[in-house]
Amino acid sequence: MASAPTRVRLSDVAAAAEVSVATASKALNGTGRMTDETRDRVRQAAEALGFRPNAMARALSSQRSLTVGLITNDSYGRFTLPVMSGLSAALVDEGISVLMCNVEDDPDSARRHLDTMLDKQVDGLVVTGRRIDTALPLDLSGVTIPVVYAFTKGPDDAVTLTADDAQGAGLATEWLGSLGRGRLAHVTGPEEFAAARLRAGAFAAVAGPGAPVLHGDWSEAWGHEAVARLWAAGDGPDGIFCGSDQIARGVVDALRERGVDVPGQVSVVGFDNWQIVAAATRPPLTTVDMGLNGIGREAGRLVRALVEGEAVAPGVRRLPCRLVVRGSCGGTPPA
Amino acid sequence: MASAPTRVRLSDVAAAAEVSVATASKALNGTGRMTDETRDRVRQAAEALGFRPNAMARALSSQRSLTVGLITNDSYGRFTLPVMSGLSAALVDEGISVLMCNVEDDPDSARRHLDTMLDKQVDGLVVTGRRIDTALPLDLSGVTIPVVYAFTKGPDDAVTLTADDAQGAGLATEWLGSLGRGRLAHVTGPEEFAAARLRAGAFAAVAGPGAPVLHGDWSEAWGHEAVARLWAAGDGPDGIFCGSDQIARGVVDALRERGVDVPGQVSVVGFDNWQIVAAATRPPLTTVDMGLNGIGREAGRLVRALVEGEAVAPGVRRLPCRLVVRGSCGGTPPA
Repeated sequence: MASAPTRVRLSDVAAAAEVSVATASKALNGTGRMTDETRDRVRQAAEALGFRPNAMARALSSQRSLTVGLITNDSYGRFTLPVMSGLSAALVDEGISVLMCNVEDDPDSARRHLDTMLDKQVDGLVVTGRRIDTALPLDLSGVTIPVVYAFTKGPDDAVTLTADDAQGAGLATEWLGSLGRGRLAHVTGPEEFAAARLRAGAFAAVAGPGAPVLHGDWSEAWGHEAVARLWAAGDGPDGIFCGSDQIARGVVDALRERGVDVPGQVSVVGFDNWQIVAAATRPPLTTVDMGLNGIGREAGRLVRALVEGEAVAPGVRRLPCRLVVRGSCGGTPPA
Repeated sequence: MASAPTRVRLSDVAAAAEVSVATASKALNGTGRMTDETRDRVRQAAEALGFRPNAMARALSSQRSLTVGLITNDSYGRFTLPVMSGLSAALVDEGISVLMCNVEDDPDSARRHLDTMLDKQVDGLVVTGRRIDTALPLDLSGVTIPVVYAFTKGPDDAVTLTADDAQGAGLATEWLGSLGRGRLAHVTGPEEFAAARLRAGAFAAVAGPGAPVLHGDWSEAWGHEAVARLWAAGDGPDGIFCGSDQIARGVVDALRERGVDVPGQVSVVGFDNWQIVAAATRPPLTTVDMGLNGIGREAGRLVRALVEGEAVAPGVRRLPCRLVVRGSCGGTPPA
């Protein structure tokens, strides 16, 4: 368990010290009017019982606001801002604010920013980044407040959230099959990205080992080049699953310029549901949505549970993706 | 002046109370060992002299870290993240961290987030948003720490930073002229945006009142439609200045599909230097860069000056834009 539940309660301390719960709270918070003897007695009782007030109780009794710090190294914000938006939404109704800190890839400045967060007494941390297989340049092993990792690599014993890349890629490939597409290809990003490997593996599991998988950059230009390669030896595939919306946009533009009709002759699926790209493509992209907002919401729920002293099992949780149907494949969304 | 310089120094208080500066500092911070009588004498001297320790001095004497809060309602982050990156860069070497809070358009949650920032004792605030002519749903008139507005509307007596839209539009239009383009048009966003009006005004001042100005959405689709309109009655313009990179991308794609060569027959300039759009356009866009990072850096410099008690004149400061030359106009960058 990432955090043991708090077993000793403030009322136990109050009973042991023979004071009211309110007096016990004030004694431990260093507030209120009482004799030094009373304050010492409460503190000794707390220590003897192993009482550790959880942050939520401390905040409630001291009337200070609860805060969760969000640390990211995604300075472009492509992945972080949807996560932040979900995180804020999950916590705002509880009166919990989210403060974000953008650390660069320099460990010294990352450490300084973390110290500021801790100095400001944030009650929990959510760490996020720009890819799921690299960690931030930041050692959080000595941090005593709860930490949840979202869309970045966390330690093995941490609570980590990510999108289910394989499940999302399966959805996309099955969608192409359900539309009668039988000659499938996958055009995706560099093989050193775990996300690209997971998606390619799921594609191959559905499309069969003979279906071509082309690795390149995460760019529109690579979409153009991949179409040139796939059509070099005559007719290309009739269904293309792309590892990102940017690649898909390049593929769709390249096919239009070759006079190949999308979706009449070829169906194309993207990945990301990045509005700015997916909606502006002609036709607009059918694509896989990783639910970054939902990952942020779940991170908020989990970090709040940890702050409240609940137990949360460590490990990687993969949240399901969903398919967003627009015009680039044909077909209508399943009911 | 947005903030009067602190005239009474800690050393004045120490002299009046007949203690050392170190003792005066500890007395006012509630730290150190001294008699209640000494502490009271220092506090009375501070009150009598009207001593208000500035945040910088308070932070230095109490060893706590300095922090600037960044408040935004730009949940997409398109404008805010470059500002934040510049702001952080300006402050990190001073050991000052930036904490960002994303307020939605709901005044209650905005107020709650602001309260959290103040509760966490940030030393200064930078407020930013998604357009220059609307304010955040947040009344900061009662806030006693320094505030700088960047790329959003601030009160008249505030320190506000923005890009010089007119100067940037002038650069773009003059660049088209310097390449020998004489039939110019401007395709831009909705007229209710101050940024669109400022850019259109500067375009007209250079291109002449007869040059067409077309207002529409900030979208690629509007770029396509505008080209259809401009070419409806025969030959269109030979130079098009677009109010955003997204519009410019639509214009360039529409021209390619008409068989009009860019930049051979028509030169196109964008606005924003939004990498994801400008670099992926074929040919890549020559465009105006608003220098959002520089606005962030200047906001950092000014908020730090205010926190240190320096005087900063209120009013709107317009920072210059620069032209980024790529392939969509022809020509080579001026030396």
